[in-house]
Amino acid sequence: MFKYPGGRQYKVKETEEAVQPLHQNYGNRGMTLEEDLNSTNEYYREHGIAIIHKKPTPIQIVRVDYPKRSAAVIKEAYFKQASTTDYNGVYRGKYIDFEAKETRNTTSFPLKNFHEHQIQHMRQVLQHGAICFVILRFASLGEVYLLDASHLLSFWERQQSGGRKSLTKQEIEQYGHHISLGYQPRIDYIRVVENIYF
Amino acid sequence: MFKYPGGRQYKVKETEEAVQPLHQNYGNRGMTLEEDLNSTNEYYREHGIAIIHKKPTPIQIVRVDYPKRSAAVIKEAYFKQASTTDYNGVYRGKYIDFEAKETRNTTSFPLKNFHEHQIQHMRQVLQHGAICFVILRFASLGEVYLLDASHLLSFWERQQSGGRKSLTKQEIEQYGHHISLGYQPRIDYIRVVENIYF
Repeated sequence: MFKYPGGRQYKVKETEEAVQPLHQNYGNRGMTLEEDLNSTNEYYREHGIAIIHKKPTPIQIVRVDYPKRSAAVIKEAYFKQASTTDYNGVYRGKYIDFEAKETRNTTSFPLKNFHEHQIQHMRQVLQHGAICFVILRFASLGEVYLLDASHLLSFWERQQSGGRKSLTKQEIEQYGHHISLGYQPRIDYIRVVENIYF
Repeated sequence: MFKYPGGRQYKVKETEEAVQPLHQNYGNRGMTLEEDLNSTNEYYREHGIAIIHKKPTPIQIVRVDYPKRSAAVIKEAYFKQASTTDYNGVYRGKYIDFEAKETRNTTSFPLKNFHEHQIQHMRQVLQHGAICFVILRFASLGEVYLLDASHLLSFWERQQSGGRKSLTKQEIEQYGHHISLGYQPRIDYIRVVENIYF
């Protein structure tokens, strides 16, 4: 939901993300993973637990109009591919960085949900001592996992060398950590972060 | 400079940022502070020194067209105010967060360059153990300073209680740290970060 300057809300159609699908595996059923995480991060900020934000969607601006006595209007722009992950911030002084994706599959998680730039970014931040992971949601099952980026990188490399193009659910259960879902916060991933990184 | 999908480059007019001026104190002379910092951050990434990115400019999207067989086109959107600072990332495992601003003044730095949301964000990340600062450029003098956010917060509070609406250059020299300028990296702020925070 984007808020129109006048206060009206504008429901963005799913197909809007044609250039870089954000909710490519998601239907119009209830909250998206992004909404759940935004709400969770807001909870963390308000309760002084962590300061983590979603980065704005990167846009290539081509044409802008400047109507007299009113705000500049962007008249032509395109979605562009992010060069980093979507979420970052600070928890207990440490740099936290993650990407969140979901699938409707029930037995595996396709690697095509990630792109090379994001993988490269995760590799870099890990080298600099960051806490870096992915949050993976199996939408049909209602299950969410946190998987350290180092494991994702291994599976990515397996694919690069001709291996399977997805992580099996079993692999995610083995190397990842189940995140319990709640009302507030909805996806309490910081509890898992606290357990496994501190 | 925004790159048009076809590869052409598009020079964005300065007035484009009418909603939230990014270069409000900057003319068309050479590199902007943002360009210098992007180049510096690229240098840091390529040399494995730090992973720091500028966040995309936040945009409110109102209308999107989906031409057949081509990328979605944003036809109506507005610049919106950032809720955080512009730059963040990781250096030696620690979360780094900063905002960069410049003025043509030569004796003081106006606090109107910052807005309440950014100040609030800096206060929050400091509470969570982040390294947080502002990079202040005196454009006419060609001088750049790093000032820890805690000092900026003090000057902000002084203003809130009826005090002056700017930092004097003398205060910046006293509480801040001069950043030496170079060719590569252009604004070597990590050298200062290393000296004062580690």
